[in-house]
Amino acid sequence: MADNKPEKKETQGITIRKNDDMSEWYNEVVLKGGMADFAPIGGCMIIKPHGYAVWERIQEILDKMLADSGHRNAYFPMFIPERFLKKEADHFEGFTPEVAWVEDEHERYAIRPTSETIIYDAYSKWLRSWRDLPILINQWCNIVRWETKVTKLFLRTREFLWQEGHTVHATEKEADAEVMKILEFYRKLSEDYLAIPVVTGKKSEAEKFAGAYYTTGIEGLMPDGKALQMGTSHNLGQHFSKVFDIKYLDKDGKEKRVWQTSWGVSTRLIGAMIMVHGDDKGLVLPPKIAPIHVAIVPIIFDKDKKKTFEECKKVRKKLSKSYSVHFDDRETYSAGWKFNEWEMKGVPIRIEIGPKDIANKQVMMVLRDTGEKKPVKMTDIEKSVKTELAAMQKRMFENAKKSLKDNTVEAMTYNDLKMAIAEKKMVHAFWCEDTGCEDKVKSDTAATTRVIPFEQKEKGKCIACGKKASKKVFFARAY
Amino acid sequence: MADNKPEKKETQGITIRKNDDMSEWYNEVVLKGGMADFAPIGGCMIIKPHGYAVWERIQEILDKMLADSGHRNAYFPMFIPERFLKKEADHFEGFTPEVAWVEDEHERYAIRPTSETIIYDAYSKWLRSWRDLPILINQWCNIVRWETKVTKLFLRTREFLWQEGHTVHATEKEADAEVMKILEFYRKLSEDYLAIPVVTGKKSEAEKFAGAYYTTGIEGLMPDGKALQMGTSHNLGQHFSKVFDIKYLDKDGKEKRVWQTSWGVSTRLIGAMIMVHGDDKGLVLPPKIAPIHVAIVPIIFDKDKKKTFEECKKVRKKLSKSYSVHFDDRETYSAGWKFNEWEMKGVPIRIEIGPKDIANKQVMMVLRDTGEKKPVKMTDIEKSVKTELAAMQKRMFENAKKSLKDNTVEAMTYNDLKMAIAEKKMVHAFWCEDTGCEDKVKSDTAATTRVIPFEQKEKGKCIACGKKASKKVFFARAY
Repeated sequence: MADNKPEKKETQGITIRKNDDMSEWYNEVVLKGGMADFAPIGGCMIIKPHGYAVWERIQEILDKMLADSGHRNAYFPMFIPERFLKKEADHFEGFTPEVAWVEDEHERYAIRPTSETIIYDAYSKWLRSWRDLPILINQWCNIVRWETKVTKLFLRTREFLWQEGHTVHATEKEADAEVMKILEFYRKLSEDYLAIPVVTGKKSEAEKFAGAYYTTGIEGLMPDGKALQMGTSHNLGQHFSKVFDIKYLDKDGKEKRVWQTSWGVSTRLIGAMIMVHGDDKGLVLPPKIAPIHVAIVPIIFDKDKKKTFEECKKVRKKLSKSYSVHFDDRETYSAGWKFNEWEMKGVPIRIEIGPKDIANKQVMMVLRDTGEKKPVKMTDIEKSVKTELAAMQKRMFENAKKSLKDNTVEAMTYNDLKMAIAEKKMVHAFWCEDTGCEDKVKSDTAATTRVIPFEQKEKGKCIACGKKASKKVFFARAY
Repeated sequence: MADNKPEKKETQGITIRKNDDMSEWYNEVVLKGGMADFAPIGGCMIIKPHGYAVWERIQEILDKMLADSGHRNAYFPMFIPERFLKKEADHFEGFTPEVAWVEDEHERYAIRPTSETIIYDAYSKWLRSWRDLPILINQWCNIVRWETKVTKLFLRTREFLWQEGHTVHATEKEADAEVMKILEFYRKLSEDYLAIPVVTGKKSEAEKFAGAYYTTGIEGLMPDGKALQMGTSHNLGQHFSKVFDIKYLDKDGKEKRVWQTSWGVSTRLIGAMIMVHGDDKGLVLPPKIAPIHVAIVPIIFDKDKKKTFEECKKVRKKLSKSYSVHFDDRETYSAGWKFNEWEMKGVPIRIEIGPKDIANKQVMMVLRDTGEKKPVKMTDIEKSVKTELAAMQKRMFENAKKSLKDNTVEAMTYNDLKMAIAEKKMVHAFWCEDTGCEDKVKSDTAATTRVIPFEQKEKGKCIACGKKASKKVFFARAY
């Protein structure tokens, strides 16, 4: 592990095509797009300012949904006593292999791989009566899954950032409703903001969260044919309230045990967004997520420089009322270099302004997703930016939706399923809900059940064993 | 360490007077005010929703100052390789005793006690040319100082939250300017928002940050006579750029070594705010920081309930345009219970609305800091809330300023100094800048030099040794 400076490559632009080697393309786009960097620690990443600004947008959007529905943020210690982790057997078994431990003279602590246990110990002390219910708390924090060996920036790292919600309810029904409310927030965040279509539903017993009664999730399909779990919302039943003794005094004077939920999305969403929308020029950020909406690049000729800069500033001022605008006034880089940079960084709209444009009372507007370049009258700029951003957001979602559709196969036979998975498709097929069949598919194709959609109308025969099946589910290889 | 539920005390209200036992009063106010709780892990705390909302306000205010001055947020791993920490000798010596370590098969990692080293390793890889300067990056994160034995909620805990800024500049002068710019942000945050007056200046060599060239700070005086370091801004000189080899290619074609700064404030600010402003009824939150500005409490009589609730909602709607308003519509608690609760939580204004008020087209307004209660005409509510909040913010700062003045003693003799410290005062006295004299004061009185103000006009004789002194500094016992 040498500390020598690596040779500084000066190649600008993305050199690997998305279709040629998606994994290498992804790394190049993340690094050159200024989203993240590898850390000098196995399995860790550095989230660079551009990537962190995207995370802040995601936080802002979701945090508002949570606050508007009565959730409040808090912060719990990242050190979780081993004796807490041990209380719920499935939870302990599921998380222990991934844990980094620290010790003091009293006991051993896990660096939080998830915070159910430490939060529920507190809830057991705080909760007294039915008046205190529901408890709706969320936490934004860092999480550690120590045994992560393969690093993939944003998607699989030892440390990552997330939010975890932890709620307490009087009844199963209320907990069910909370699970579905949050899942809908996650779907909305993914589809309406990140422009990534998802399939939603329940997870199989094998795929559910360690310690959950049941798990629901949103699942996206990446261009390499792998599904990505983008968010999960769990009904924990009374699994934790039993072992942490979380009770309340009800109106009828009786002590009752609570029902709980937990749910989370992480910085992995950023990885999904990069994979789904990025192209051979770099990042393509959905307008609703982009930290910068418009980059203004002056076309500089010495004699007109002052006037060109003035015009750029005017446009910046005009657009800054409603949008995040960056005027790239650096004189040490060429216009072409700047075009490249803002394309790599995925800025939705580039506005070029040169002497000719000024003479024609127009600007050149370049759309990041299609590459379309068109002149826009000075007087129409605000209206045009508004229209183009909205159209781009819609277009990006529609394209991703088409891709999800095109890459989902309705499989009727086991051979269909095997072939489709081999062709990097997601498969929609009947399943009898037997774990044995799920295991068979997994060992034959490396695909797992991703979600069991909530609405089920058809009945058919299990793709693996041929027995009666009332659930049609999604199978895919997954990240 | 039993996991049994502690007996649930039902005593409402603060039972300990601030003047009788400030330490116990502080704990009671923090706990009953819903700001934080002790965690079941030695030295750790849970930041509860009300406390976390205050932290979010502080983040919002400071983050805007930082963003407006060109700083951008990022996130670096919390695992710091031991080999990095070791590079700067003073830094290593200063922080190693406090570190929690984790290990993998490669090496040992400190859980970040501060992030200079891991960030500067990245900077050394990122920085190429003068065009990349300055680098202005900030990070909001959790921090661990493992060997913290005495827990004091918000003030001294094993884990806490903070922001740490890390900047890179071409020259010493630019680094100096950055240090002072940030110190001014911190002063503004403390005085104009938290309503806590501070003394500002340079730290002595003995008190500076481990690894700094020099440290500046803002220092508040708590009601128990102890000074509290509320924020520090360091010029790191070239101490770290030497050992991490942080260089850039300058315009003249030469490789040059950079100058750096780092700076931070933490959740400790919340503790300062509680101590300075709290009273025998609980928290008193400065209006500019309070997550809730106005609590509306209906005075309920069964026959008028509907009308009273309607009137409360009207007032809420009116005030919600500009303020954060909570309408306490719980019917299972008495009005008196609610008054108590909102007082404990430090909400600046309480509005009471009952049938009599409605008949008189007025509400009762109660100010948290003075306890003053006055009728306000329905038509004047918005104007009145605006005026009262601004007056309260000003009054709280003026009161705290008077207290700082009243509790600062100009000491002419060593005996003056000793007596003043024994009487829990802050002392302003000449010092020759010799560490021996600082040590003598410390061993005689437990007081340390807090800051050396930037502006120095007088000359005199060192309070400890009598030699010529050109600096008048602040001495106090400190948290």
